[in-house]
Amino acid sequence: MSGIGAIIGSIEENFDRHLDKIREFVRQPSISASGEGIRETAELCRALVEGLGGEARVVPTEGHPVVHGEVREGADRTLLVYSMYDVQPVADEEGRWIVPPFRGEVADIPEGKSLVARGVYNTKGPLRGFFNVCEEIKAMNEALPVNLVFVIEGEEELGSPHLPSFVENHIQELSKADAMYFPMPQESIPGRPNIVLGVKGIVYVELEARGGAWGGPSEFGIHSSMASSVDSPVWRLVHFLSTLRDEEGRVLLEGFYDDLRPPTSEENRFAEEIAKTGFEDEWRRSMKIRRFVQGATGRELIRRYLFEPNLNIDGLVSGFTLKGTKTVLPHSARAKLDLRLLPDMSPEEVVRQLERHIEAQGASDFLKMTVHDMYPWSQSPPTSDVVQAKVAALERLGMRPLVWPRIAGSAPFYLFNRPPLNLPYVAGGAGKAGRAHSPNEFFTVEGIKRFEKGVASFLYHYAGME
Amino acid sequence: MSGIGAIIGSIEENFDRHLDKIREFVRQPSISASGEGIRETAELCRALVEGLGGEARVVPTEGHPVVHGEVREGADRTLLVYSMYDVQPVADEEGRWIVPPFRGEVADIPEGKSLVARGVYNTKGPLRGFFNVCEEIKAMNEALPVNLVFVIEGEEELGSPHLPSFVENHIQELSKADAMYFPMPQESIPGRPNIVLGVKGIVYVELEARGGAWGGPSEFGIHSSMASSVDSPVWRLVHFLSTLRDEEGRVLLEGFYDDLRPPTSEENRFAEEIAKTGFEDEWRRSMKIRRFVQGATGRELIRRYLFEPNLNIDGLVSGFTLKGTKTVLPHSARAKLDLRLLPDMSPEEVVRQLERHIEAQGASDFLKMTVHDMYPWSQSPPTSDVVQAKVAALERLGMRPLVWPRIAGSAPFYLFNRPPLNLPYVAGGAGKAGRAHSPNEFFTVEGIKRFEKGVASFLYHYAGME
Repeated sequence: MSGIGAIIGSIEENFDRHLDKIREFVRQPSISASGEGIRETAELCRALVEGLGGEARVVPTEGHPVVHGEVREGADRTLLVYSMYDVQPVADEEGRWIVPPFRGEVADIPEGKSLVARGVYNTKGPLRGFFNVCEEIKAMNEALPVNLVFVIEGEEELGSPHLPSFVENHIQELSKADAMYFPMPQESIPGRPNIVLGVKGIVYVELEARGGAWGGPSEFGIHSSMASSVDSPVWRLVHFLSTLRDEEGRVLLEGFYDDLRPPTSEENRFAEEIAKTGFEDEWRRSMKIRRFVQGATGRELIRRYLFEPNLNIDGLVSGFTLKGTKTVLPHSARAKLDLRLLPDMSPEEVVRQLERHIEAQGASDFLKMTVHDMYPWSQSPPTSDVVQAKVAALERLGMRPLVWPRIAGSAPFYLFNRPPLNLPYVAGGAGKAGRAHSPNEFFTVEGIKRFEKGVASFLYHYAGME
Repeated sequence: MSGIGAIIGSIEENFDRHLDKIREFVRQPSISASGEGIRETAELCRALVEGLGGEARVVPTEGHPVVHGEVREGADRTLLVYSMYDVQPVADEEGRWIVPPFRGEVADIPEGKSLVARGVYNTKGPLRGFFNVCEEIKAMNEALPVNLVFVIEGEEELGSPHLPSFVENHIQELSKADAMYFPMPQESIPGRPNIVLGVKGIVYVELEARGGAWGGPSEFGIHSSMASSVDSPVWRLVHFLSTLRDEEGRVLLEGFYDDLRPPTSEENRFAEEIAKTGFEDEWRRSMKIRRFVQGATGRELIRRYLFEPNLNIDGLVSGFTLKGTKTVLPHSARAKLDLRLLPDMSPEEVVRQLERHIEAQGASDFLKMTVHDMYPWSQSPPTSDVVQAKVAALERLGMRPLVWPRIAGSAPFYLFNRPPLNLPYVAGGAGKAGRAHSPNEFFTVEGIKRFEKGVASFLYHYAGME
């Protein structure tokens, strides 16, 4: 026996070992924001590619390195696997985890027996799971059904600032690929894993209001009794923020919606399909939400999610924030904002809109804007081989995949999807996981197994060996 | 030689020892917000009163204790000394101090050689300085020129929540006093120490916006890609705050200015006197301010300070506030606000205005308000003996005191000034000090000496023994 049936059987048989390998991998911290464990984790990834008989290098960038690898199997098709080895910080989540975030522990949670750890869902769990599948194929003395090119970056959670230059410098090597795959479990509704065709673009900025020539205390917070005589940077920031978005959530930047194209009929059909599922109940449960924006449900809710850009406040801080009282007029105030962009909106244009808005509001005296990340949306055609292979692969396992024209999150898929590489891509996979960027991020044990089986089936389907 | 001349001489002679005693006192932390060192400092205060041959008790309250003491000298007049032994927190000022805040170190700073420590200005420095003067008089084998009643509380920086019940329970003992004195250096303009006749009232509230039945994530922050589908508590808070105060600083609560009485002609005269001094340059220098509200200077600036109520944001926090980026839609957001009130505004009425505003804005679904502190303004007549004695005492030392109808800060003087006690009072003293509630709080060494001499002169003047 070889091919899909055999590999599925082996995954089942050796699953305990697979789980242990994922636990080991998530135990290694790799926080791109602080740099903790970044080098070590890049080296682990290099070793994983080499363990498959491939070649790999830890490629330095001006930031954290990219792991670039190739496994040449003489196969007809070559799949570029894009993933990341970095994770979000946990420093601001202290005391909110049921197990320490880097101990790789299995815990019983309402979603079922799960591995609970930072990065287990986003995205070190599925990355290690992908390697588990390849290792299992190799252990059966088989060649992988496709050649692989790996691009595993260490700055996705920082907005992938140095991935563009890496891609630019490796066009030759990367153009060996026929398609790109981003392995990530997306099965919030049991039996309905998501096939993801796109992502929203993102602009992430930080605004700082600070006292200076215009007024306000400029070096330290002063006694708040001065507040009738001295300007307040935090009040300025609050008033400025209130001009950016109205109370219904509409973004007030001039021209923000100008380039937003209406959903295509195909996108509308996908939205209808999703609306028929129990996605909404699952969202309520998993994110502890009792009511969505303006009471939206079903079709209206999924259309907001898929088809609306937005402006979010990720963080806001000024002055005295500890328990109790302190009477101080703070000298500075900071806000972190992210904007999610849809076709055909351009991040560069949105940054210009922000700059013009600051000017128009007369805020340039007191406000400084720093652009942390920005990159465009991307979208892959549903008709491409790689998407069709992913659909067939999951159907082969008895699942009913659900095609999402995009998710509302952002990832730098445009680097592979746009010229010169022009690779079609697919993201997603089977398996229940959740709470990315939140405490108690998890991947159910059963979900990990489903994920791995889905990956195996996909590799053979994409190779035309189903 | 006895009386003022002798004591001034002794202070000069023994000043090094006085300075050491103040350094020792400020080395003992006494942070009411955390409780650190509160008990120990209360005991130190008790011992200080007993050291003068008086009686003292550490009186428990539902919060931190009040030190109540009496020194009976058989004098004609009895002065109630109100002070505090607690200080503001330093936890949010980490790394901003030039010397550790509780090491009692003397440092060379632009203001001159100074003791730099938390509480050295507000108010443990002047409190210990007051005791230094009394100890010096006793060391000369003289009786104090007045009887003293001490009320030294440990919760002033928390808004004195339990001082009202302490006063109520000790009316009999406190009514032995003829006047109240609050020792605190106020000599920002060299040679022009302030005589302070009043304080603004205060309301300090905390607002928390949180996800719930109305919408938003209710238990933890979620991935910010959900922002087009899920309400944002921090956006709600920002919009709500922007309805509380306009961009010019005018408070938008309905009825807020209704009970504000215009300045009296006497208050106007005091303001004119202050406007003639260099107060503005001193403010610019000491608080690092380059421009005041709407470019106000001189008379207009001091009138804003003295005669305008206001609403300040002391602190604001939500979501991810550390370095770098995290894409999260926070489930809660908090703001700390203080309002400063003038005659005849009532704190209770302002709290009701806030409550009505929350209702009117439809914010009660998502917003919870907690009142931390509140108490009224107070004002003492400039014609009273205690004020006249303070003026004469400083003139005797060659200074030209400047009468301030009030300072913009708040203190619970109303408890002594209003019925049933009805005590006239005076606050202030000679000596340069600054940066209360800020890093590098200081009291110049020369200022401490001037302060003590001013206190000595005042005690003899108030006793009619000048």
